Amino acid sequence: MTLTKEEIAQWFNGLQGRICAALEAEDGIGRFQADEWVREAGGGGVSKVLSGGDVIEKGGVNWSAVHGPLPEMLKREAHLENGEFFASGVSIVIHPMSPMVPTTHMNVRYFEMSDGTCWFGGGIDLTPYYVDEDEARTFHRRLKEVCDRHDPAYFPRFKQWADEYFYLPHRKETRGIGGIFFDHLKPDEQRSKQELFAFVQEVGELFAPLYCSIMKGKKSLAYTEDQKRWQLIRRGRYVEFNLVYDRGTKFGLETDGRTESILMSLPEHASWYYDHRPEPGSAEEKSLYYFRNRVDWV
Amino acid sequence: MTLTKEEIAQWFNGLQGRICAALEAEDGIGRFQADEWVREAGGGGVSKVLSGGDVIEKGGVNWSAVHGPLPEMLKREAHLENGEFFASGVSIVIHPMSPMVPTTHMNVRYFEMSDGTCWFGGGIDLTPYYVDEDEARTFHRRLKEVCDRHDPAYFPRFKQWADEYFYLPHRKETRGIGGIFFDHLKPDEQRSKQELFAFVQEVGELFAPLYCSIMKGKKSLAYTEDQKRWQLIRRGRYVEFNLVYDRGTKFGLETDGRTESILMSLPEHASWYYDHRPEPGSAEEKSLYYFRNRVDWV
Repeated sequence: MTLTKEEIAQWFNGLQGRICAALEAEDGIGRFQADEWVREAGGGGVSKVLSGGDVIEKGGVNWSAVHGPLPEMLKREAHLENGEFFASGVSIVIHPMSPMVPTTHMNVRYFEMSDGTCWFGGGIDLTPYYVDEDEARTFHRRLKEVCDRHDPAYFPRFKQWADEYFYLPHRKETRGIGGIFFDHLKPDEQRSKQELFAFVQEVGELFAPLYCSIMKGKKSLAYTEDQKRWQLIRRGRYVEFNLVYDRGTKFGLETDGRTESILMSLPEHASWYYDHRPEPGSAEEKSLYYFRNRVDWV
Repeated sequence: MTLTKEEIAQWFNGLQGRICAALEAEDGIGRFQADEWVREAGGGGVSKVLSGGDVIEKGGVNWSAVHGPLPEMLKREAHLENGEFFASGVSIVIHPMSPMVPTTHMNVRYFEMSDGTCWFGGGIDLTPYYVDEDEARTFHRRLKEVCDRHDPAYFPRFKQWADEYFYLPHRKETRGIGGIFFDHLKPDEQRSKQELFAFVQEVGELFAPLYCSIMKGKKSLAYTEDQKRWQLIRRGRYVEFNLVYDRGTKFGLETDGRTESILMSLPEHASWYYDHRPEPGSAEEKSLYYFRNRVDWV
């Protein structure tokens, strides 16, 4: 039983549709608009964007399946030899209007080289503006349950990887409350390609119910202008992370990827105030504490 | 007659004060707040920030004089040997409230190594939201006059350098209408350190009268919500340039510089809309034309 790159890309494509449908149902009003694009050097994708929803201010669910000669940057950074590559995946960032509803990101991806080597990567992380401990524990617990069904070593490793990856050294802050991040999951004697794909599929399928239940619980909460201002400041940090550190973004921009699909991850509005510091004892300061001190939520 | 690094740093410090006074006078209401800071590895600076002025929404005028062991990044990127460095300069970004008034940036800097090698760098560039051809020609002409007084080869070289430096490859756009940019101006048989410094001083002293006359001419113009929205979209590009490409920003963040002083350059608000395109025939489209097609303004 072989598992081809076409089957994987096809499954990712179906996942994009299921996630968009679930998000639209929870939003109630917003509808994703699809934008098909072709990559000059090979392949293409479909970017689905929702803006001006009832809960979601701007959300992007991107699917792509691209191929061609290996970009220079990948040769250099991943120490890969000359050859043809194939990459497919789904990448999501959802920015809700309300500061009470967290921003979130999910990615599942598959990479294959013409010499036959292949690997999976992905992750889910949550960026609340106001950290809710119960929500954070539930979020991490559900990620752990999925990981544990495949390998009890996954969650501790991938949770730490997320803490390290979603980190802004110049702010000494994490982007949010983390989640899981993994890369270079290669089939070996212990684990077949099918088994790895089954794990990635379960991560992908977890996203919509997990985030929709968070949206449901928070979308009707009232908020003040000051809370909205705090959200915009924290979104500034999101922009800083994505433009300065995020590898997918850097890879996309440096390899002449489709700019609008790559930068779909940026929020509709973000703010920067010089040397902003939350009031001592405020809810904002408490959230900042969690971004400055990594927590084992489960 | 020697020219010491202390004298240069001192002159830059005075320049910061003169520029802040001129900008406050033209703004009418806003006042710069000074923030002194110390660099752990050696030296420090004074960040002066104005926010909520009548014309200036957020402006930063930063002076610093830092020293210590050469950071790894500089060794790597500038191919420098081990040793101690000294760097001093003034760096400015002014973001006005009105989309009719351009954003601007100026930098003058001096760098010296413990082996005695030294050089100057700097530049001025303008980022209008609505390109005004007369204003652009005057701006470039005044930069050319200063350059020409020191070397007729400067302006064409430094104008091109600015066009290449203030460029966003992923957008295929310049940041604005350019200006001048120069680096590694080293004393040699043709030109003494004093002569180079005289040029840099004249660039520094040109900034305030040049930008204040632009502010004066545009600050009373009325504008619409749509024009404000266009400004916020273009400011998104400014954020992209500064976080993805600007060498000063990257250098600062990677060498553990003072984050708030480095990111003072970011606007108070910026927006990203998926695949935004100006109306055909609109003033926005006309401005975009100038960002996509380099112009010889003089």
